[in-house]
Amino acid sequence: MSFTVLNPALPLGSHIVVLHMVCCLFKVLIKDRSSAKKVLIVYAHQSSGSFNAAAKTAAVEVLKSQGCTVEVSDLYAMNFKATATAEDIKGDIKEAENFSYLKETRLAWEEGRLSDDITKEQTKLTEADLVIFQFPMYWFSVPGILKGWFDRVLTSGFAFSLEKLYSQGVFKDKKAMLSFTTGSLESMFSPTGVNGDMNVTLWPLQNGILHYCGFQVLAPQIFWAPSCASPEARQCMLEGWRTRLQGLLEEKPLSFVPLDCFDKKGFQLKPDVHEKHAGKEFGLTVGVHLGRKLPLHNQMKAGC
Amino acid sequence: MSFTVLNPALPLGSHIVVLHMVCCLFKVLIKDRSSAKKVLIVYAHQSSGSFNAAAKTAAVEVLKSQGCTVEVSDLYAMNFKATATAEDIKGDIKEAENFSYLKETRLAWEEGRLSDDITKEQTKLTEADLVIFQFPMYWFSVPGILKGWFDRVLTSGFAFSLEKLYSQGVFKDKKAMLSFTTGSLESMFSPTGVNGDMNVTLWPLQNGILHYCGFQVLAPQIFWAPSCASPEARQCMLEGWRTRLQGLLEEKPLSFVPLDCFDKKGFQLKPDVHEKHAGKEFGLTVGVHLGRKLPLHNQMKAGC
Repeated sequence: MSFTVLNPALPLGSHIVVLHMVCCLFKVLIKDRSSAKKVLIVYAHQSSGSFNAAAKTAAVEVLKSQGCTVEVSDLYAMNFKATATAEDIKGDIKEAENFSYLKETRLAWEEGRLSDDITKEQTKLTEADLVIFQFPMYWFSVPGILKGWFDRVLTSGFAFSLEKLYSQGVFKDKKAMLSFTTGSLESMFSPTGVNGDMNVTLWPLQNGILHYCGFQVLAPQIFWAPSCASPEARQCMLEGWRTRLQGLLEEKPLSFVPLDCFDKKGFQLKPDVHEKHAGKEFGLTVGVHLGRKLPLHNQMKAGC
Repeated sequence: MSFTVLNPALPLGSHIVVLHMVCCLFKVLIKDRSSAKKVLIVYAHQSSGSFNAAAKTAAVEVLKSQGCTVEVSDLYAMNFKATATAEDIKGDIKEAENFSYLKETRLAWEEGRLSDDITKEQTKLTEADLVIFQFPMYWFSVPGILKGWFDRVLTSGFAFSLEKLYSQGVFKDKKAMLSFTTGSLESMFSPTGVNGDMNVTLWPLQNGILHYCGFQVLAPQIFWAPSCASPEARQCMLEGWRTRLQGLLEEKPLSFVPLDCFDKKGFQLKPDVHEKHAGKEFGLTVGVHLGRKLPLHNQMKAGC
């Protein structure tokens, strides 16, 4: 489309109409830009030649092509500090002899005295609509450098409080997801496999960190043992990820139990909720299982 | 007991008999000393005034009083590096462009080229009969500095291999346990609590790290929300720990499924084991639950 804004062959009124149309189009473009989704990728692999790097690059490319703004926190390249220490706080420590990281960082956050590297990550998080954590699974969990990111960036007050937890959490309007590679085959992470059910292994990460802060948690993207796969199979995994990324922002999240189903004192399931589920075969989630069978795929697929 | 080794009123033969008795006693004492248990405490709290510090000190005192040799790795005091990087390897990286921490550190371990801080921790681990991990639970898991210890010290080859896993693992003659504080109340970590069943949260740590390397895993010592408790209640928790420590070395470990119950190809439960448990109400462990109810207290109490 092209506009001839000033054509001497047209009367002045026509010029005004055309200018108005141009202004309207600019407004639409500006609005589109401001409502474009912002994505933060927290990436934890040492090598740019790795499968994790390729998965990260695929996410950047596909999401950008959809008009998203994508920011990457490349933790190893940033030499991100993974230990929660008093150095994370500027100025005085209130109780140096009985140092509590939780309490001191909460106070520092309230007073704008957190270290610059933490504040920078918190700003990125505040701006993001979707956060993707891309990492190789180390020891049934995230690598130490990413655990350090969770420990240090998700400060009390900033990311959660006693009043703002889970479905009523600080980040309840944001989405987050884990995207990771395993060393083990898929069969090993089943309810009859030697490593046990992957749904169990994911609970502390997806419920205990992401959903605890309110995030709507999208199903994890699991790349099963790419180091044991052929180059073609690895390529196929990446293609699957690219396809998924195209619809990622419209995906429904995993199911958790809403916070108002628990009482405010001991955070126990309210009797009426319990009664409503009496006699059912399956529990509500992997963790809130009520002594029943775990709901199938609860931490792996939306709506389970 | 006292010996009068040289009494001129006794004949020479009596002296020889007494000397022989003294030598035998020395031998017994020396043997006792060499068979005394060695304990490694991997401790991750920033403050010497913390409840975790008190729990660590209690363990050192009680175990030493029982004749154990106790070594403490005080991770924050050591400024322990928590990130898995190429700096952990002395000399050349074999595949710098496609760096694999797992493969490169395995090779470095085989060739004695791991960094000194890792080697030092590995030596402590090799010598230990029992390892106690003392930490405050951060985000349903260990703090980043302790995750870094697991990531870096439990090197492939040193701590596990495809042939040496789980009940046939490298450390199958050693014991290990988690001892930790929570921020949440016990009620929140139940199968009807907002955080979900603590047995689920413990699975990745106790099965995925400790038992994966072969450790016999002792029941965890959980100090529920000491920061919310009165000084008297905290004191009571520590007394309970001191009492437990006196019998700790004789405790039976948690139950896991022996490795030979799984086939060698996909590490799936063998059909005969599956059949043997057909029709039963509960699964075998929290992770290997066979689609059934989780066995109660499986990750919290021995023999469950």
